[in-house]
Amino acid sequence: MQKIKTFTEQEFSWPHDFYSDGTNCGLRTGRPDLGWIYSKTPAHAAGVYTTNRFCAAPTKLTKQLITQNQLLQCVLMNSVIANSFTGAQGVAAVQAEQQAVATKLGIAPELVGVASTGLIGAYLPLHKITQGITQLELTKKTTVTRAVLTTDTHPKTCCVTIKIAGQPCTITGFAKGSGMIHPKMATMLAFITTDAAIEAATLQSLLSELTTSTFNQITVDGDTSTNDMVVTLANGASKTPLLTPTSPDFANFKAAYHHVLKSLAQQIAADGEGATKLVEANVASAKTAAEAQAVAKAVVGSNLVKAALFGADPNWGRIISTLGATSASFSPDKIDLSLNGHLLIQQSQPLSFDKELVSQSLQKDKVYINLELHAGQASGQAWGCDLTYDYVKINASYSS
Amino acid sequence: MQKIKTFTEQEFSWPHDFYSDGTNCGLRTGRPDLGWIYSKTPAHAAGVYTTNRFCAAPTKLTKQLITQNQLLQCVLMNSVIANSFTGAQGVAAVQAEQQAVATKLGIAPELVGVASTGLIGAYLPLHKITQGITQLELTKKTTVTRAVLTTDTHPKTCCVTIKIAGQPCTITGFAKGSGMIHPKMATMLAFITTDAAIEAATLQSLLSELTTSTFNQITVDGDTSTNDMVVTLANGASKTPLLTPTSPDFANFKAAYHHVLKSLAQQIAADGEGATKLVEANVASAKTAAEAQAVAKAVVGSNLVKAALFGADPNWGRIISTLGATSASFSPDKIDLSLNGHLLIQQSQPLSFDKELVSQSLQKDKVYINLELHAGQASGQAWGCDLTYDYVKINASYSS
Repeated sequence: MQKIKTFTEQEFSWPHDFYSDGTNCGLRTGRPDLGWIYSKTPAHAAGVYTTNRFCAAPTKLTKQLITQNQLLQCVLMNSVIANSFTGAQGVAAVQAEQQAVATKLGIAPELVGVASTGLIGAYLPLHKITQGITQLELTKKTTVTRAVLTTDTHPKTCCVTIKIAGQPCTITGFAKGSGMIHPKMATMLAFITTDAAIEAATLQSLLSELTTSTFNQITVDGDTSTNDMVVTLANGASKTPLLTPTSPDFANFKAAYHHVLKSLAQQIAADGEGATKLVEANVASAKTAAEAQAVAKAVVGSNLVKAALFGADPNWGRIISTLGATSASFSPDKIDLSLNGHLLIQQSQPLSFDKELVSQSLQKDKVYINLELHAGQASGQAWGCDLTYDYVKINASYSS
Repeated sequence: MQKIKTFTEQEFSWPHDFYSDGTNCGLRTGRPDLGWIYSKTPAHAAGVYTTNRFCAAPTKLTKQLITQNQLLQCVLMNSVIANSFTGAQGVAAVQAEQQAVATKLGIAPELVGVASTGLIGAYLPLHKITQGITQLELTKKTTVTRAVLTTDTHPKTCCVTIKIAGQPCTITGFAKGSGMIHPKMATMLAFITTDAAIEAATLQSLLSELTTSTFNQITVDGDTSTNDMVVTLANGASKTPLLTPTSPDFANFKAAYHHVLKSLAQQIAADGEGATKLVEANVASAKTAAEAQAVAKAVVGSNLVKAALFGADPNWGRIISTLGATSASFSPDKIDLSLNGHLLIQQSQPLSFDKELVSQSLQKDKVYINLELHAGQASGQAWGCDLTYDYVKINASYSS
């Protein structure tokens, strides 16, 4: 497999023929709140969306466009207000946004997707949005990665290059978290752009497959948002050969794309509301991958486990109790558990361990929980964060 | 229907021929940690138990005794250490406890149940327990209701009398919470005693039915414990006629029993770890009772809803988002929502409201969330609490 070249946030760049911008249109003060991404030519598009039944107007529109046409050229996005649960007025707002972007760019409205994140039940001040659209330009800046943030403390980005038929090709993604995160099918907002040449159906199939083990495996608080979506645009501007499942470089592209999705997913979990650390659960020797993923997600989703990890408390009983509440296949007398590499339970026998030492290791900004179920060959991962005073503080006063 | 006479905590009393005691045996300092309840004659027994697959040794034993014999005369109980995930040593400890009680009381060991709550994975100091058993007496004191408490701030008790064939009959229950509470079938520890005459099969059927709408409808943190059980003992000492489903007073007994279970369930939720208020969700006009209960439980279980209520923030979008993530039958454009009697959403249209006024009402120690789904005739309730700094504080350092 080809080595994936990754870039730091500072080296982040857009693929060929992708442009972007962000601005402040007055939804909040002092930070960008509106932005777009744009491809010089219509790009093949794939998406996954929230399963919440109060799907927000912008998410509905973008889903409809991608489903019908598999093409998008621009996505407009804003933070602060989710335009969710806003009825006919919300739908009209989305259409007005779409039209304003299409007019400014001189492209068809059906090539313009819209995404919003923020407070549910508030109406978009449309005059601010349309005024903001007039300020947006086609640049190579990264302001859009900050324009979509809400309670996130920093942007989540991932940029990689691989070679396809010997020619460089870029995949660049960004995302926002960081509360109401417990995706059932997709999550939050994430956008991935690439100049690889790949058809929408192939891209959709890859995105759906890889979402299962990346965005669907993170949880911050067990709540599923109304506005979640992950959208990928591929414009072929790298001039590399068309990728199909039988291409020699398909596996390399898939690995690089997977890397971007997983990196963004981990960054979202690590920057969960109030979080001080990323928690990764690795479940091995499970009967099926789905069971391994379910156990891993249950463990990183337990409030009691999360609070214990905030306190750097190696209270493994809570991990065991969470495992016991799942329906995964395992024999209750064969479990191995380690925390940050310290084996605490072997064949379901608690081992004596240096509590001080393990507690010290739990103070790091990344915690690994490894479970062996001894029920099969499959494995799965999930990512979450600790439960802190700041989570409560942030969420006790969000709409005020 | 007969009026149920309830008693305050000060007026709490045991039914005829039930005795109890509590003591400190040194598992912790300054508070009782060991106790028992005892019936002068073997009592008909019914129970519901945790569905956690790491069911603790004491819970397993008590479940086995009730399932096999439907009779118990005494239940020994301790806090601090759960005797869970303790393997063969844990099983041996439970048998030793059972034998020590049987010897002291001069009854058969198979009439002695055992219950434990506290830290998972720690071994019981058996010499302290057996020494403690020698201190226990047959009294009418209520110390046992405090001996089972862990992070609870106060005992949960409920005592009612009704008349059966004109004669008084008492039902007295107590319970402990207050973390790791999100029962799937039963919850925590709760014991209900009655001097009514009722056979074990009838009692079991009532307990199983009523648990669905009481203990199974509370949640503190979404975690299911390894030691949960609800046990009811009926000794017939009131000398009232045998209750069967066709008895004239059966409905009255059922209502009174339901009252006790529901009261204990609500008290547990209200005293959830760190909680400042009880949250009650009432879901009406649902298609089925199961769907109504599932929606109600999802709403009181949402971390985001719980944190908003701690902050007295009428952020109804989080309630709507939680509803949207359920699989209940409803049309997304027909929902009504009120908070503490203030109608905020009608036919899925957000209404303008006095945010200050609603926020003030949310500062009370009980919050009502009422949802109308307009999908049928069924209704359901659930109880939870707010998510606070103290929840995090308590759980970041539980085992230390």
